This record gives sequence, structure tokens and C-alpha cells, in this order.
Amino acid sequence: MAELPAVTILLVEDDLGHARLIERNLRRNQITHEIVQIPDGQCALDFLYSEGDYAGRIRPERLLILLDLNLPRLDGYQVLHRLKTDPETQKIPIVVLTTTEDSRDVDRCYELGCSLFFTKPVNYSEFTDTLRRLSETLSIVKIPSGN
Amino acid sequence: MAELPAVTILLVEDDLGHARLIERNLRRNQITHEIVQIPDGQCALDFLYSEGDYAGRIRPERLLILLDLNLPRLDGYQVLHRLKTDPETQKIPIVVLTTTEDSRDVDRCYELGCSLFFTKPVNYSEFTDTLRRLSETLSIVKIPSGN
Repeated sequence: MAELPAVTILLVEDDLGHARLIERNLRRNQITHEIVQIPDGQCALDFLYSEGDYAGRIRPERLLILLDLNLPRLDGYQVLHRLKTDPETQKIPIVVLTTTEDSRDVDRCYELGCSLFFTKPVNYSEFTDTLRRLSETLSIVKIPSGN
Repeated sequence: MAELPAVTILLVEDDLGHARLIERNLRRNQITHEIVQIPDGQCALDFLYSEGDYAGRIRPERLLILLDLNLPRLDGYQVLHRLKTDPETQKIPIVVLTTTEDSRDVDRCYELGCSLFFTKPVNYSEFTDTLRRLSETLSIVKIPSGN
């Protein structure tokens, strides 16, 4: 059987400090997937649909999205809605990683089709522990192909 | 804020040896959620819709489903299809844990709306390691409310 193409993690996060912390901790926990940092919701869609700054670039074939909710331009809910109502993108797993733990936000994300929802702890060591736990799973999860 | 109701894990697995191994390893890895073992796809739907053997029983409010694919009566694909096309049940996260790692099966499950897909390794120690990794995530994931 031919080897599957590598997995790309699309990290959609406007807080540069958080983005660096997340990437550093995924690396520290043996995540070897390509990680692409994207600063807002519109850029995420541009990346996925090869538009705007990403025009002419080919979307990676196997993707998992790590999505913050509070984002400039288009927020995480809008990104979820767009990707989960388009047959072309709806099977891409979207894991929400955000500051809120309000149950209405959790419910809304699952209604929109997120895979799983995690809250970023405010405390630094709890945040790194969350990223360690998430890495344990990301290292073994099977990702669908793009088409 | 009122405390959220406890989370129930619905473990849909026809192989009793696997079911015991999964439950034992979730417990060993500090998963304290209620775990309900269900032996086939039809029983899973009966449990979720309070029908058949589960008539008159109230469905737990916050659920996560761990779903095998090869099941008697109704298979995992049929369970996924039914639950993900019914607005009443579609936001329940469904994590697939099964023996196959064929990319067509992986793709089909994501198309049907599974949250994440994991393969059960044949090797015992790799299987327990997969369950340990899964437990790390299950202990922090936020689960939606039922209604």
C-alpha cells in the first residue's frame, strides 16, 4: 500500500504568544506533523480555498485544524460553519482550543460540527499539561484524505 | 453557576474481551466518567432513543460515544449515519475505535461525522498505550449538553 501523505496541522490562533506556546509544546511532545500558523479566520479560509495570499498554492491533502474562537475578521464559529457546510471541506477534523468554558459556547461548537472542544487553562503549567494530553492523542489519530 | 451533570461514556463494542480491556484501561488512567457497555449497534440506538430494553429510561444528558465499526445487527457506519442525521443526537461526539486502518474506512467515518478515528493495535501493549493516550484526552475534553 502506498504511504499516506503527511498530516498538516493548521493552527488558527491570533494570539502570537499562545501560537508559539502551542507549537513548542506539540514539538516537545513528539508531534512531527507540519504545523502552519494562521492568524485569523479569513486567512484560514483563504488557506483552505487557495485564495487571497494563498492563491495558487495547493491545499495539503490531509489536514487537522486547531481552532481558536476569538479571531479577527472571521471568528471561529464562522470558520466552523463555513467548513462544515461545504462538502469539499466538511470531513476535515476541527478541534477547538479556546479560552472559554461556557457551556453555551461548547454546545454551539458541537452543533456546528467541531470534533472535540478543549479549554485553554489560564494557568501556565495547566496549559502545557493540556497541550501534552492533546499531543498524546494527535500522535495516533487517523486523519482523512482531502478528497 | 450550577455544576454540569456528569459525563457518560457509551462504549459500543461487541467483543467482550476488548470491552473489558478498554474499560479497565480507562479506569487505570483516571477516567471517572460513568461507562455503559453496549454490545451492538441496535442496542446503542435503543439506549439513545429509550426504546427496546431501554424503554422508559432517561438518556444521560452528557454523552460521548466510543464506537466500534464491526457490530452485529447495526454496524458502526449505520449508527454514525443515524445519529449524525438526527438533530436530536447530532452533537454527541462519536469517537471511532476499531480494528481497521484502511483509509477508505477512515474517510467514510469522517464523511459520516465521526469526531476522531483511532485504530486498535493488534499488539496488546500498543493497545493499552492507545487507551492511555485516549484517556489523557477524554479526561479534559468538554462535552456538550444533551438538549
